[in-house]
Amino acid sequence: MEFLKIPFSDMQSLFFRILLKYGFPEHKAKVCSDIFAENSLEGIYTHGVNRFPRFVDYIKKGYIKVDSEPDLIHSAGALEQWNGNLGPGPLNALFCTERAIRLADEYGLGCAGLSNTNHWMRGGFYGWQAAKKGYVFIGWTNTEANMPAWGAAESRLGNNPLVIAVPFENEAVVLDFAMSQFSYGKMEASEQEGRDLPFYGGYNSRGELSKDPGDILKSRRTLPVGYWKGAGLSLMLDILATVVASGSATFEVSKHDAEYGVSQVFMAVSLKKLSNFEYVGKTISNIIEDFKNSSSDEMNSEIRYPGERVIRDRKENMLHGIPVSKTVWEHIVHL
Amino acid sequence: MEFLKIPFSDMQSLFFRILLKYGFPEHKAKVCSDIFAENSLEGIYTHGVNRFPRFVDYIKKGYIKVDSEPDLIHSAGALEQWNGNLGPGPLNALFCTERAIRLADEYGLGCAGLSNTNHWMRGGFYGWQAAKKGYVFIGWTNTEANMPAWGAAESRLGNNPLVIAVPFENEAVVLDFAMSQFSYGKMEASEQEGRDLPFYGGYNSRGELSKDPGDILKSRRTLPVGYWKGAGLSLMLDILATVVASGSATFEVSKHDAEYGVSQVFMAVSLKKLSNFEYVGKTISNIIEDFKNSSSDEMNSEIRYPGERVIRDRKENMLHGIPVSKTVWEHIVHL
Repeated sequence: MEFLKIPFSDMQSLFFRILLKYGFPEHKAKVCSDIFAENSLEGIYTHGVNRFPRFVDYIKKGYIKVDSEPDLIHSAGALEQWNGNLGPGPLNALFCTERAIRLADEYGLGCAGLSNTNHWMRGGFYGWQAAKKGYVFIGWTNTEANMPAWGAAESRLGNNPLVIAVPFENEAVVLDFAMSQFSYGKMEASEQEGRDLPFYGGYNSRGELSKDPGDILKSRRTLPVGYWKGAGLSLMLDILATVVASGSATFEVSKHDAEYGVSQVFMAVSLKKLSNFEYVGKTISNIIEDFKNSSSDEMNSEIRYPGERVIRDRKENMLHGIPVSKTVWEHIVHL
Repeated sequence: MEFLKIPFSDMQSLFFRILLKYGFPEHKAKVCSDIFAENSLEGIYTHGVNRFPRFVDYIKKGYIKVDSEPDLIHSAGALEQWNGNLGPGPLNALFCTERAIRLADEYGLGCAGLSNTNHWMRGGFYGWQAAKKGYVFIGWTNTEANMPAWGAAESRLGNNPLVIAVPFENEAVVLDFAMSQFSYGKMEASEQEGRDLPFYGGYNSRGELSKDPGDILKSRRTLPVGYWKGAGLSLMLDILATVVASGSATFEVSKHDAEYGVSQVFMAVSLKKLSNFEYVGKTISNIIEDFKNSSSDEMNSEIRYPGERVIRDRKENMLHGIPVSKTVWEHIVHL
């Protein structure tokens, strides 16, 4: 596959022009194109540049309503419930991240439930935003069904990504992970490269655990993180998102002809409101320092904290351009 | 091994008498013995009857202070920080569960951080308590280091159990899981029975993934749930517990000669404060119904939601008594 290296600002401005063309008001086109470009810059291509064409397709199909704004449905103090009105997922998610932050400023912690919204692309983006402003962030989304319950043959659970972020020096520690051991994107890439997954990633058509991405892509039976444990966590995240957002559950989202109208939760804790505010930064640094001091295993592995690679990718891609397959980029140029 | 079947009330009253003997005031002895007996009744023997002797031992050694009460260190609205003063872990945890609930009554959601506390035994207990009263519960604890980071040779992470609970009909759905794939208790039991673990549970002394519980118990290198994902989640839970509780991190707890002085977080959301309160019960039932409708895999597995087995164990053990090894029970009788 031929790859181009696209400068960050070129990607940003192309996305911006395309979103304007598809009816985004200028300020929204700016924020949304920034998010897609930044997700790409930071190495999450699957939820940046590579996903941009599908985002535009969903706008064309009317799944994503360009003009929609979130509405406040209910306020209960530190907890608010918002209706995303099927607006662009990244804009709704960023809005509710801000709401959780404002509530945390007032109450120490805050929570915004968001119903009837669209794919937030990369959840880690919102974690980075909140953490860099000095907040703990916990957020998750439900998805359409794409993973079986433990012991089940067909997919009724979502992979329901969960994000947890904390400030760390001038950056952040950001965990952003889905409840399936490998994403469909990762499995497709491994299949194209003709490589097995490093660990079991799902089941083959005979119901046996498999490392062969092609087999798993065919059976559509992905493996939950930690077997029964990740399956259980996925179920709980779906229940919580549905209840707190007063929105649709995975089984309801899965009745649509595409994935839209999902439910999300955004929580923030204000570090400034803690008793020991002036020591929190040092506390986090001490924990990361101890973690990084782990001696490596027999394979001499590097010990990385969640989000560490993002910082490297960001620097690298800012310097040399963002890697994009020529096919994908030419498709985007003609959108 | 010879097993006895101890009636619930006999277990409760023996624990009660023993705690009185070791200096518990009557009302605290009552609550604490109830928790130990109920954990046993509900099938979590490792954190009920089988752990009771160690609890008493820690009292004797002064790690657990029988007379201590939690102190409010800081209040920031919906978020409070408490110092557990090394009091009995279950009493401190139950107290902070109650605080999170009261804060949720006022603010929609509430959070209590608890520093300087002791092992809460079975985290699920607090989830059941809150959920049966109509609250969503999210809580976690850090622990001493007992699991390696991903790619690391030695243990610097805790297994940091996480509990998520929601009301469900007259019962609850309660997920209670540690970040290691198998607990040391499970591995010891498998070793005694001479059986391999059903999946990789850690590393042998050559640093290879292993299903042999004896090998893993020797190496002390347990496998995080979902490899790098569970390791990342464990790190985040430690950072959050340490920061929100303003307490000790796993690396600090691990410097002690025993596990005491851990940090915990208790969060509650009041379902009554949600816009759609009257439909929440039905919403949760619908999700569980869809989940249970999953068709089984080739092994004809039963599809169980988190906590489902607890209800069965509770009925069974209430009817026929709680199974306890004769050795353990005789030891307790002589405490």
